[in-house]
Amino acid sequence: MMGKLKIEVCYSPALFPFYENREAVVVVTDILRASSAIVTAFMNGVDRIIPVGTLEEAKAYKERGYKVAAERDGIVRDFADFGNSPYNFSKKEVAGHHVVYSTTNGTTAINLASSGSQVLIGAWLNITALADHIRNSGRDLLILCAGWKNKFNLEDTLFAGALSKMVLQDDQFYTICDSTHGAMDLYEAAQSDMMGYIEKVAQRHRLRKNNLDDVIGYCHEPDLTDLIPVLKGKELVRLINDK
Amino acid sequence: MMGKLKIEVCYSPALFPFYENREAVVVVTDILRASSAIVTAFMNGVDRIIPVGTLEEAKAYKERGYKVAAERDGIVRDFADFGNSPYNFSKKEVAGHHVVYSTTNGTTAINLASSGSQVLIGAWLNITALADHIRNSGRDLLILCAGWKNKFNLEDTLFAGALSKMVLQDDQFYTICDSTHGAMDLYEAAQSDMMGYIEKVAQRHRLRKNNLDDVIGYCHEPDLTDLIPVLKGKELVRLINDK
Repeated sequence: MMGKLKIEVCYSPALFPFYENREAVVVVTDILRASSAIVTAFMNGVDRIIPVGTLEEAKAYKERGYKVAAERDGIVRDFADFGNSPYNFSKKEVAGHHVVYSTTNGTTAINLASSGSQVLIGAWLNITALADHIRNSGRDLLILCAGWKNKFNLEDTLFAGALSKMVLQDDQFYTICDSTHGAMDLYEAAQSDMMGYIEKVAQRHRLRKNNLDDVIGYCHEPDLTDLIPVLKGKELVRLINDK
Repeated sequence: MMGKLKIEVCYSPALFPFYENREAVVVVTDILRASSAIVTAFMNGVDRIIPVGTLEEAKAYKERGYKVAAERDGIVRDFADFGNSPYNFSKKEVAGHHVVYSTTNGTTAINLASSGSQVLIGAWLNITALADHIRNSGRDLLILCAGWKNKFNLEDTLFAGALSKMVLQDDQFYTICDSTHGAMDLYEAAQSDMMGYIEKVAQRHRLRKNNLDDVIGYCHEPDLTDLIPVLKGKELVRLINDK
C-alpha cells in the first residue's frame, strides 16, 4: 500500500459505529432513489434540500410553506407536493426553492455521516466530480451505503465499488477494508452489463411492483453533472469548490 | 423463483436483528479460524465444545478442570491449554474431552443464532455435508458470518456464497436477498484462484503479522469431513443425522 489516506465502505447504517471516522469525507449514497433524486434536484436549480426521516416532520414543514417530496410504498402522501422519484424534481417544481425530502433510509444515513469532516451526497450522476473532489480533499474517504432498512443492498455497493476504484487511482489512497474490496469486485463483475446485473437487486423488484422502476436506468447514468450536494447544518446545499 | 424455502446471508452479528428468522436453520461461520477449529476438533473426536466470549469465562472453566483454548492477539493465555488454531485441536489434545473455546466474534454469533430452529457450525471442511443436511431440512437457511469486530469480512462471505450456491441447486430453495447474491458473485469471482483472492483479506494480514497464517490453506480445504457441529443448549455437539 502506497497511500496514507484510507478508503472504507460501510454497507449499512447499522454498521456505521464500527467504521466511524471523524477525519473522513463521508459520501452517503442511496442510488434507488434518494441520492439520485437529491443530485437531480441540484441539477434543476433547487436552492437547498432538507432531508427528514418521518412523514410527521415532512408534514410540519409543509404547514410552514415548504415544498415537500414524500411518499411511502410508492404512493405520494396527500399533504405532499410530489413523490420521491428523481423525475419529480423538475426545474418547474424545484428551481430556487427549499425542498423537504422525506426518506427513511437516506435521512438516517445522513445524520450518522454528520460525525465526519464533510458529508457529500453521491450518485452515478455525479460520480466523477465526486472522485475529483475527494482526491483533492487530502482526507480519508468513508462511503456509507444507505442500504434497505439496515440490510446490505447491491445497488449502493456497486456505486461504492466504482467510486473506490476511481479514488484509488490516486496513490495518496489505499484500502485494507474487506468491504471496499468486496464492493470493487462486485462492481467489476457487474460493469460490463450493469442493467443486466441490476435485474437481480431486491429494490428493483420493489420498485417494479409499484410501477416505479422507470427510474432505474436514469439512476445509473454516470456524470450528468459536476454538482455535489454537501451537508451544511441540517440542510443540503451546493458544494462550492475553491480549488 | 421456484422454491418456497428462502436463503439469506447476514454479513455481521450487528445486522442479525434485520435478518433474524426463527424458522431457519442458522449456519454460523468464522472461517479464520473459529468455525474451522471447531469442525477440526470434532474430526479429532472431541466430545463437546463450549464456546465462551470472554477470557474470564474461559479461565473459570479452566479452574473447574476443562481443557481450554484461549488466545488474544496471537498469544496463548497463560491459563490455557492451547491456542485457537485448528492445528491445536489434535486427537491427542481433544479426543473424548469437553473443550472450552474462547472466541469473541464466534461466541457472539453463536448466541445470536440460537434464536433459529437449529444452529450449525459451517466451514469449508464440512461444506458438502452441511449443504446436504440443509437440503433435507425442509427449512429456510440463514448464514451468519461472524465477521471481524462486527465488520464485513471476505473469507466468511466467500464461504456463504459457496454454500448458498450448493443449496440453491435444489429448487425447493430461492433467494431474493442482496447479500446472498453478493456473496455468490464474490465466490464466483474468487473460486478459480481462492488462495490468490484470499491474499487481499484483512484477516490474512492480521494472522501473518502474528505468524498464524499457516492455517489459511487448511481452512479453505473443502470436504475433509461429514461431521457437523450443532448447538445443544450452550454446547456444541456432533449432529446425529436421522435421515
